Amino acid sequence: MSSTFGRLFCVTNFGESHGPAIGCVIDGCPPGMPLTEADLQHDLDRRKPGTSRHVTQRRESDRVEILSGVYEGQTTGTPIALLIRNEDSKERDYEDLIDTFRPGHADYTYWRKYGFRDPRGGGRSSARLTAPMVGARAVAKKWLRASFGTEVRGYMQQLGVIEIPFVSWAEVEANAFFVPNSQVVAQLENYMDELRRSGDSVGARLRVVATGVPVGLGAPLAAKLDADIAHAMMGINAVKGVEIGAGFAAARMTGAESNDPIVPGGFRTNHAGGILGGITNGDDIFIRAACKPIPSIEKEQETIDIGGHPRKVAVRGRHDVCVIPRVIPVCEAMVCMVLADHLLRQRAIL
Amino acid sequence: MSSTFGRLFCVTNFGESHGPAIGCVIDGCPPGMPLTEADLQHDLDRRKPGTSRHVTQRRESDRVEILSGVYEGQTTGTPIALLIRNEDSKERDYEDLIDTFRPGHADYTYWRKYGFRDPRGGGRSSARLTAPMVGARAVAKKWLRASFGTEVRGYMQQLGVIEIPFVSWAEVEANAFFVPNSQVVAQLENYMDELRRSGDSVGARLRVVATGVPVGLGAPLAAKLDADIAHAMMGINAVKGVEIGAGFAAARMTGAESNDPIVPGGFRTNHAGGILGGITNGDDIFIRAACKPIPSIEKEQETIDIGGHPRKVAVRGRHDVCVIPRVIPVCEAMVCMVLADHLLRQRAIL
Amino acid sequence: MSSTFGRLFCVTNFGESHGPAIGCVIDGCPPGMPLTEADLQHDLDRRKPGTSRHVTQRRESDRVEILSGVYEGQTTGTPIALLIRNEDSKERDYEDLIDTFRPGHADYTYWRKYGFRDPRGGGRSSARLTAPMVGARAVAKKWLRASFGTEVRGYMQQLGVIEIPFVSWAEVEANAFFVPNSQVVAQLENYMDELRRSGDSVGARLRVVATGVPVGLGAPLAAKLDADIAHAMMGINAVKGVEIGAGFAAARMTGAESNDPIVPGGFRTNHAGGILGGITNGDDIFIRAACKPIPSIEKEQETIDIGGHPRKVAVRGRHDVCVIPRVIPVCEAMVCMVLADHLLRQRAIL
Amino acid sequence: MSSTFGRLFCVTNFGESHGPAIGCVIDGCPPGMPLTEADLQHDLDRRKPGTSRHVTQRRESDRVEILSGVYEGQTTGTPIALLIRNEDSKERDYEDLIDTFRPGHADYTYWRKYGFRDPRGGGRSSARLTAPMVGARAVAKKWLRASFGTEVRGYMQQLGVIEIPFVSWAEVEANAFFVPNSQVVAQLENYMDELRRSGDSVGARLRVVATGVPVGLGAPLAAKLDADIAHAMMGINAVKGVEIGAGFAAARMTGAESNDPIVPGGFRTNHAGGILGGITNGDDIFIRAACKPIPSIEKEQETIDIGGHPRKVAVRGRHDVCVIPRVIPVCEAMVCMVLADHLLRQRAIL
Repeated sequence: MSSTFGRLFCVTNFGESHGPAIGCVIDGCPPGMPLTEADLQHDLDRRKPGTSRHVTQRRESDRVEILSGVYEGQTTGTPIALLIRNEDSKERDYEDLIDTFRPGHADYTYWRKYGFRDPRGGGRSSARLTAPMVGARAVAKKWLRASFGTEVRGYMQQLGVIEIPFVSWAEVEANAFFVPNSQVVAQLENYMDELRRSGDSVGARLRVVATGVPVGLGAPLAAKLDADIAHAMMGINAVKGVEIGAGFAAARMTGAESNDPIVPGGFRTNHAGGILGGITNGDDIFIRAACKPIPSIEKEQETIDIGGHPRKVAVRGRHDVCVIPRVIPVCEAMVCMVLADHLLRQRAIL
Repeated sequence: MSSTFGRLFCVTNFGESHGPAIGCVIDGCPPGMPLTEADLQHDLDRRKPGTSRHVTQRRESDRVEILSGVYEGQTTGTPIALLIRNEDSKERDYEDLIDTFRPGHADYTYWRKYGFRDPRGGGRSSARLTAPMVGARAVAKKWLRASFGTEVRGYMQQLGVIEIPFVSWAEVEANAFFVPNSQVVAQLENYMDELRRSGDSVGARLRVVATGVPVGLGAPLAAKLDADIAHAMMGINAVKGVEIGAGFAAARMTGAESNDPIVPGGFRTNHAGGILGGITNGDDIFIRAACKPIPSIEKEQETIDIGGHPRKVAVRGRHDVCVIPRVIPVCEAMVCMVLADHLLRQRAIL
Repeated sequence: MSSTFGRLFCVTNFGESHGPAIGCVIDGCPPGMPLTEADLQHDLDRRKPGTSRHVTQRRESDRVEILSGVYEGQTTGTPIALLIRNEDSKERDYEDLIDTFRPGHADYTYWRKYGFRDPRGGGRSSARLTAPMVGARAVAKKWLRASFGTEVRGYMQQLGVIEIPFVSWAEVEANAFFVPNSQVVAQLENYMDELRRSGDSVGARLRVVATGVPVGLGAPLAAKLDADIAHAMMGINAVKGVEIGAGFAAARMTGAESNDPIVPGGFRTNHAGGILGGITNGDDIFIRAACKPIPSIEKEQETIDIGGHPRKVAVRGRHDVCVIPRVIPVCEAMVCMVLADHLLRQRAIL
Repeated sequence: MSSTFGRLFCVTNFGESHGPAIGCVIDGCPPGMPLTEADLQHDLDRRKPGTSRHVTQRRESDRVEILSGVYEGQTTGTPIALLIRNEDSKERDYEDLIDTFRPGHADYTYWRKYGFRDPRGGGRSSARLTAPMVGARAVAKKWLRASFGTEVRGYMQQLGVIEIPFVSWAEVEANAFFVPNSQVVAQLENYMDELRRSGDSVGARLRVVATGVPVGLGAPLAAKLDADIAHAMMGINAVKGVEIGAGFAAARMTGAESNDPIVPGGFRTNHAGGILGGITNGDDIFIRAACKPIPSIEKEQETIDIGGHPRKVAVRGRHDVCVIPRVIPVCEAMVCMVLADHLLRQRAIL
């Protein structure tokens, strides 16, 4: 239950960062959709570690194997199991952390929850566990695109103190930082290099836009689409805030400013972010999320050990400076899955 | 499925704003807890309409009846059904809206989702449907308090352009606006009177704090506590943004600033908002949410009718100027329910 | 969770035999279906107590009120809440049972599960709680019939030692015992009178047939239709055995006898009971169930009290001699709900 | 959703008979329990093909790999993923069945449900998919035994026309047919040899007994333990009937015969099968199930092809004569999982 996302398009995630393998089981994908491992691999390659000096240098091929649910290149309607082997799990990186809790990490809470200390790279709290979700996204994405023309895309809006003006979607694909503006790339690289040298990391803000979303997705009270998107986004590692449409800016608006006038053919503005009463209105869905800095930093920090004694810790190893370059595909994945789930639910009632 | 919150502490909501009754079924409350209708009524009275000139003047006694699950003043462990009759549902208020969609409301999306136009006050999208959740909260609240000493409280932080500095929790209970600072009440009243005169409304921001939360609630990936809180909060009418701990401010921080140092006995700061890796760390849970302005305004707005023709609409009736005074108990309710649900889940595994 | 049936067509049951009211919330019924209280009342009247001297003489009008989900005679797609007030709950009937466990009843297990003794007529284990399910059935039945021509009907096949040969469906509706053969009615009445005089009761066997079921309902492994039917039937009070198609007779068959030959247009026989691999094959669904005798008997029985001391008990009050005359509508209800649920699921994927 | 068993002890099954691999994800196992692949392998070896001439000669090592959820020989509380590679999947066996539906199989219903024909050994309807459930059982079994002393065991009661008198549990483990009586083994072998020579197969009946079950498991209405057991058993391939306690014999009983007298320390008889009102009473749980004959027989049968034309089919290949020798561990597995699930649920409320 705790590891399964969705009600009709269900994704059950398994694995730990330093165990033998990670993966997921995707249950509920309609039959008859063309699907190959190449479809999945493309998305996984976008997310994978080691793609630039600003992200973890862990070397994983992240080669995905489809174990079930596909026959002769088509989905069968039965569960699609994905398997990704862990290859480069250096346990020695974590040896000096066995008895110590890293600030900002889940070490402490896992230990208290399960009564159990698995020191290997955060175990199941590692960002590595987002890889299977990105695999699942490829399945949802294909179905959404083929059936409804729906597209879900994200980009980085802000890195620490640097705001990044939007230029175009084409630019987003043209750099490793998913920024919609290639001109800021050099500035971002310098900023990140500086942070790395000082043994620090930094937070960021990102935006996801879904276009071509059918009207009528979501349901009142317990199955609102914006609530399910908020669940999906806030559940991503490092995310501390989520906005739909105008978000926090809506707190300063008057009704006359905030309401989107309805005109023949659509809405004049989109402060609603494409969702009214928890149900899509046919407009684009606008989502923003804030990520905290990567907690693994080389700067010395105060902490305690398992015995409760004060300790100092400096987290060495192969860590990202900023979560964003790798988190964008994950955000897209989570939104794709929520939309696929609600599309199936809506098909059931109409 | 779409109307049920929670996995073990489950609340199934039913009813429409202008139907015969609203209510909910609370399944999963442990047996043997003292519970009376008076426990519920207190919370409902805090939320109910007509308590000041700034909220809807609809007259509802909101008298709650416990239909089941309680025997001789104690919960039995079986479903607790709550019933609240609708008394003051003036259908005539909505007569001129039968064919027209109110901007910022769910009229349009319900119509497109269900192929059906229920013009009576928004039907199931009405804020009235939060009353049963407030009833459910009283059950969760009693159990949390008695079993773990957990308390969940909220207050208004900002009304439109007015920021409200925190003075004390005692002040929150001393005014109808749930502001932690009685000195701003006169200013808020003037601001709301002015908005009402201009036929407009305004947004706001609120904060919820949970204290005395046991460590270890929440689970990795699909059952993170922060994700479930985000779901619960974003699902409340008018909420457009949710933050946990540092929230969007985390995007500007470095890791050294953001990480909460761990010291014997706890954490030196609380940027995490009491949750690490989706699991409570024993510190207070800090939540913020932004609400958009009430969309029902008397100012004339552009819209369309069912035939798709342009129309002008001015929404008359008995509407709140700001959602906040009545939404605070709802936010507290939703957080209580999420905590009760996760406490039951944690008891199962340990 | 524990009180909700179904995944997409969800029915949440609440109430106790001797509390203020019983009812249910039906979530997932598609919008736009004509529905009135009269539709529900007809089915409830078929099931209700006091209809003959062979069933409990408790006097309940079982008048159902639709609290939500219907507007101007049509379902809206939102939850349909049903309310039935308890009128004739004589607590004094149970006064001498406060400290004693009735053999064959759930008194003992409820007490051990919840640490709680509610002596009023079995509380939530009472057959009275099937009334809301019969109400829910009317909703599912109307939708199944209108959309697919599906019909679900049951009859009594055996009462104690008396086997009742099938004559026609028309006869089933022509007597209070739901027997397909009016000629045996006098014999059954005598048999039941004799049992009542001796202070005893008797078991029975029934059969349910679903016709006009679309092919393709059910899914492999965890959502097999026959498994879900078995769950629904075995969950009915007093049911101790369930068969699909050939049932236990299949244990004696060879493959050549058991396999249903496939011919153009269908199957030559129906040992499968309309389900292959957990999925409907388009043929009629055949279900049989065995009910144990009503455990409330006036004959003296051995038992213990709350202190664990031996006691004798003779259960007086207003009890049925055989569960069947009132359980048939419940069996039909449960099968209707399972079919409605699976039809919605199948619409989602195709 | 359709491939996940359980609410708190959840098992998500994936794979097809002739795909690359089968397996499952077990979510909800409490942390800190010793677990190794050897624990699982023992149970898998009991179920695996090729163990006698009476079961399929498919050669599978059924070697299970634990991919996650176990660290240094102990469960971590996070999902336990099991992987079993398919090794001996001879597609050529099925070549002549590509266009033809085998009577008694799910070929036809899968094709109609999914619009898709996967001719490879029944795909997901194959008995091979029970192997992961047997793996999951080992996890549930260990936890049940260590925590509560619960044991779940099954044996064959009847093979076709041969009834097998019970001698002892020790005998069950002493032969490949799981019969509690070694003296009948020769008779059974002759009977099966004869059936194989005539190109036929045969049904059977089995019994499962759970001992040491805590009182109080199960919940009223939708989560009755007997209903969940019926779901689990009827969902096993070939099962057509399920009985709890007295089962169908209860239909002939009177109340005085059927009610189990309660005496200090327990019950004098066990017609209830250990369950009253859907809740365990602390007595042994008695379950019986009937299996239809293996539908794959060499005898020629009538069928149709994909075009709807009449065809004759004789199913060659490597098939069991009777499902029972391999289904017993599966039945035990399903009951173990239901009990583990309900034990976790009960721990949550008390």
